Amino acid sequence: MSAITFIDYAGVAVFAATGALAASRKQLDIVGFIFLAAVTGIGGGTFRDLILGVPVFWVANRDYVLICTVVALVVFFGAHRVESRYKLLLWLDAIGLAVFAVIGAAKGMAITGSPAVSIIMGMLTACFGGILRDLLAGEPSVLLRPEIYVTAAIIGAGIYTGCELLHLPGPVSYLSGVFAAFAVRGGA
Amino acid sequence: MSAITFIDYAGVAVFAATGALAASRKQLDIVGFIFLAAVTGIGGGTFRDLILGVPVFWVANRDYVLICTVVALVVFFGAHRVESRYKLLLWLDAIGLAVFAVIGAAKGMAITGSPAVSIIMGMLTACFGGILRDLLAGEPSVLLRPEIYVTAAIIGAGIYTGCELLHLPGPVSYLSGVFAAFAVRGGA
Amino acid sequence: MSAITFIDYAGVAVFAATGALAASRKQLDIVGFIFLAAVTGIGGGTFRDLILGVPVFWVANRDYVLICTVVALVVFFGAHRVESRYKLLLWLDAIGLAVFAVIGAAKGMAITGSPAVSIIMGMLTACFGGILRDLLAGEPSVLLRPEIYVTAAIIGAGIYTGCELLHLPGPVSYLSGVFAAFAVRGGA
Repeated sequence: MSAITFIDYAGVAVFAATGALAASRKQLDIVGFIFLAAVTGIGGGTFRDLILGVPVFWVANRDYVLICTVVALVVFFGAHRVESRYKLLLWLDAIGLAVFAVIGAAKGMAITGSPAVSIIMGMLTACFGGILRDLLAGEPSVLLRPEIYVTAAIIGAGIYTGCELLHLPGPVSYLSGVFAAFAVRGGA
Repeated sequence: MSAITFIDYAGVAVFAATGALAASRKQLDIVGFIFLAAVTGIGGGTFRDLILGVPVFWVANRDYVLICTVVALVVFFGAHRVESRYKLLLWLDAIGLAVFAVIGAAKGMAITGSPAVSIIMGMLTACFGGILRDLLAGEPSVLLRPEIYVTAAIIGAGIYTGCELLHLPGPVSYLSGVFAAFAVRGGA
Repeated sequence: MSAITFIDYAGVAVFAATGALAASRKQLDIVGFIFLAAVTGIGGGTFRDLILGVPVFWVANRDYVLICTVVALVVFFGAHRVESRYKLLLWLDAIGLAVFAVIGAAKGMAITGSPAVSIIMGMLTACFGGILRDLLAGEPSVLLRPEIYVTAAIIGAGIYTGCELLHLPGPVSYLSGVFAAFAVRGGA
């Protein structure tokens, strides 16, 4: 498994975990956990792929849905052990946001070659899963709460895209973008 | 008209009726009835087709929009005669859910050949219209209320997919899936 | 720039302005302004293009995103000068609605040739941006408030489509549709 595949899977897993934690806060049943985990984990990327006009990533590769399901089960059986589920959710959300901003920008760059579109795709990929999660769970949208959310995604996607334009090595671009987004979001 | 086309149309019609009943509960005007009927009747299938990357079903075949419109008009002029609109809505919703879970799974199976994707498509097709209806009508999401909803869709889609894998005759697969989903949902 | 391009850009700009005004009412930061402006300005057209199965308009032409960003900035620095932001929002919304109903119908007609699909596309393009804006800003949906909203979009799209079927000159069709929708909406 390449490093990029690994961080992609990790991003899906942590976002799925935030969906499952939201299900836990709403006291849903196990199917509710899996549903919210999947919507949050793959919702942003689905939207990105639809807009880019490419095949939706999780239809071709079943691993993503499997990851969401496993994460949902782990949270379902383990969440009561976590002291502050909301705090954990926020931290995982920050990691997922940072990873997805860069993944989304990378896919946008690969397909359109346009920096502007890449930054928007990074932002959409990072924010849309959380927006869907909050809409479906009936919670106030992340959009309206800590607004640094969208900003962090744009900064992460922008720094990745900038590194790419400078032809820096792939891992440098990825890590710079992820750390920048995480620092902005985590520091807020 | 083949039997499959008939149950497909029937599924759209009953879901459209739930949308129109939601419009009736919100005391919308006639256009509101048609709009909510159409969103609920064809929303789930639209989402399914977008994700599968196939042409959206109601753009090519105008019957679906016509069905939603007619159903909305019937409900608009007849809903005040129904004693318990909410109870009727719930029963129609259960029928639509069962039919759409199987229709969605069948389309997923035909296009991707993957049982996992088929079950997800059945679930999406069955649940998404109702989720949209509740979001737009400002009611608590079906997702958060009786969670057996998503479960019933998954069971119906799963049983259909299982029958298909066993190469049972088409009508057997369809009816088994529909009855299973309806029994789970209606029994709850 | 052709007249059609101009009114297309104008429609995006006024809808973007309503998104930014909603952000202003919610006291979001500058990124929140840009985000809501973009979602409102290009959301309806995005949905239309996805359903029609054509490339999403703003991915190929970066002007649209630029327009939304500039409009968001102007509103961000100027909104406090406007006496009644809500009233302004309603008027701009009526203009955007009228323009988008016709633009959406025109694209639907060009691609599918079906009057029924064209009217639906006009309605979707005109209404979806505002629906998204209200969902994300946590305000009661335009759908539930002044229901003349959807009606106005359908009338505008219908009159445009009718003019097209009569082979009237393009500008006549466009202007008739826009004025009809605006009159219905503005008169309400």
